[in-house]
Amino acid sequence: MKLICTKENLRKGLFVVSRVVGVGNPLQVLNNILVKTDQGRIKLSSTNLEIGVNTWVGGKIEEEGSLTVPARLINEYINNLPTEKVTLTSKDTTLNVEADNYHTNIKGLSSEDFPLIPQVADEPFAKIDSQEFRDALSETTWAAAINETQPEISGIYMAFEADKLRIAATDRYRLAERTAQLLEPATSAKEVIIPSRTINELNKILGTGKGEVGIYFSESQVLFKFDETEIISRLIDGAYPDYRAIIPKEFKTQATVPREDLIHALKATALFAPDTNNIHLEVSEDGVIKVSASSAAAGENEALVKGKVSGIANNAIFNFRYLLDCLNNLTEANVVLKMISDASPAMLVPEKRDNYLYIVMPIKV
Amino acid sequence: MKLICTKENLRKGLFVVSRVVGVGNPLQVLNNILVKTDQGRIKLSSTNLEIGVNTWVGGKIEEEGSLTVPARLINEYINNLPTEKVTLTSKDTTLNVEADNYHTNIKGLSSEDFPLIPQVADEPFAKIDSQEFRDALSETTWAAAINETQPEISGIYMAFEADKLRIAATDRYRLAERTAQLLEPATSAKEVIIPSRTINELNKILGTGKGEVGIYFSESQVLFKFDETEIISRLIDGAYPDYRAIIPKEFKTQATVPREDLIHALKATALFAPDTNNIHLEVSEDGVIKVSASSAAAGENEALVKGKVSGIANNAIFNFRYLLDCLNNLTEANVVLKMISDASPAMLVPEKRDNYLYIVMPIKV
Repeated sequence: MKLICTKENLRKGLFVVSRVVGVGNPLQVLNNILVKTDQGRIKLSSTNLEIGVNTWVGGKIEEEGSLTVPARLINEYINNLPTEKVTLTSKDTTLNVEADNYHTNIKGLSSEDFPLIPQVADEPFAKIDSQEFRDALSETTWAAAINETQPEISGIYMAFEADKLRIAATDRYRLAERTAQLLEPATSAKEVIIPSRTINELNKILGTGKGEVGIYFSESQVLFKFDETEIISRLIDGAYPDYRAIIPKEFKTQATVPREDLIHALKATALFAPDTNNIHLEVSEDGVIKVSASSAAAGENEALVKGKVSGIANNAIFNFRYLLDCLNNLTEANVVLKMISDASPAMLVPEKRDNYLYIVMPIKV
Repeated sequence: MKLICTKENLRKGLFVVSRVVGVGNPLQVLNNILVKTDQGRIKLSSTNLEIGVNTWVGGKIEEEGSLTVPARLINEYINNLPTEKVTLTSKDTTLNVEADNYHTNIKGLSSEDFPLIPQVADEPFAKIDSQEFRDALSETTWAAAINETQPEISGIYMAFEADKLRIAATDRYRLAERTAQLLEPATSAKEVIIPSRTINELNKILGTGKGEVGIYFSESQVLFKFDETEIISRLIDGAYPDYRAIIPKEFKTQATVPREDLIHALKATALFAPDTNNIHLEVSEDGVIKVSASSAAAGENEALVKGKVSGIANNAIFNFRYLLDCLNNLTEANVVLKMISDASPAMLVPEKRDNYLYIVMPIKV
């Protein structure tokens, strides 16, 4: 293998594929990046056996070939290079890197030892705008269960229905659901559960870029393609809980409040609930939302937020983190809090948008 | 105690004094900040028994008094407040904080339990410009020994000689020395050793501010005063090593090289010396400085830096971190490396400035 490319292109490509690579994996080749010539371009690949990433970088191929090299080393080396161009040449399992006054030989491993990243369908199942996708993910994915003892809810639920993609995440104490617009109707209706880790990596790949994201499926795998990069992951087996059944249809109290004001009130009050995270939220008919907490060690706090209230007075105890998770990920100036009682699920939605909802269970004390 | 002040002034003051405060110190009052009325202003104090910090904040005093409150809690609370003004009122050992729609009672401890921060001389021993002081500290203090088994060299040496302040730090393998200009001659000649931690805190207090720093001494304490803040610390007992005796007077090789180029070459090469940190530096008479390293696991690297060389060819092995520490803290475009042999101390100095020197011992392999 012999190829020439700009330092900057190579740096960007290595950065994209490096994130799924482990450090100190006992199977050495899993710490490595596969560098391969591919139809006139340079293909960089990485995998942790659950997630695989491929990206393509432009360059001049002088001799076809492939080799794997330690991800961290090649990344740091290329990052630090003060030159514009780099020449990579493989000799057996060594990668020679030449760049002006820098001459190096990096010890690698044969590409034959590198795990095969599965092939997925050639034709996209669905297409979505990258910004729409990113917004939808940022409003939902953090609500998934962290504990993987319940594998279904540790993942992100995606349901394709005509030209809509419904994304949901829950840990059984709270639920976030966002409906996103597809660029054209999906090939068929389909429900899948995708590992949270995959979505986190996808989010990084989407970055702030603009364009179209292609979504591809095989029996047990999903592939997302954006720009010159694709991420391939296994799907989670199992049935996602029928969460729609628990979403209340009607509420008794509805409070519209400035989102930032509620965030400040929750943060201030949370300092006085250091052990439990429990804060008391009281909605009064005159439009004042009182957030309060007290602890024997720290003291007590009460913060008032002014909003607009319709329906009856209501109150409940919540884990402040569950409320902040949602509030911090919305962008609207106002949010609407809907309540039934201190023992029934409450709902948070942005004002003037109906493609998103967040359900949170009160704490029973 | 009752006082009114702006949130912003209080926030800044709390930030300054909070840094020396511990978290979870078993002696609860050491986790607290002392809030005290003082001649029409608000005095905030903190101490970890080794270092004490006092700062003064403007405000309206309605009733004299004092109280200590948990540093972390009051900091986070005031930080988060969305209001402009704050009213603080003490009731026994509780601090009531009122700010628009925020009402809180923070549990504190009596100010009588707060350790006395020592008083130091009223008259400054010396005065120095804050920028000059900051520059001098940034070029030296990181060279001190981390291990406190040799307490003298774990501190920073300061020698006052007429209108000069000579600052030195060493860990016996390297030495940094900078001579700074005082604003007027010091009261007398004096040598002291100041704990590194104190200098780190001082650096943060100096920040990027401009002005005069007053330096005060008592028998066993030093006080630095800048703006509305003072930091008081014990001095380290003992005699600082006579480091000037080991500074070579003459060198056989002198290489002037672009500082950034040498940094890049060292960083690239360091990746190939993961276990030892040892890199080989060869100066040739034709003006090329070769930096190289190799390891069985990673491979090998050679980076060439072009400079101007006078004297004989020379080479030695160095810990790359010791060279980078110095190079990263200088600002000049060019540095001068002076060598005698592979077993004698080498010197790094900025080009065209004679108030700074750095000595580093080569590694014997």
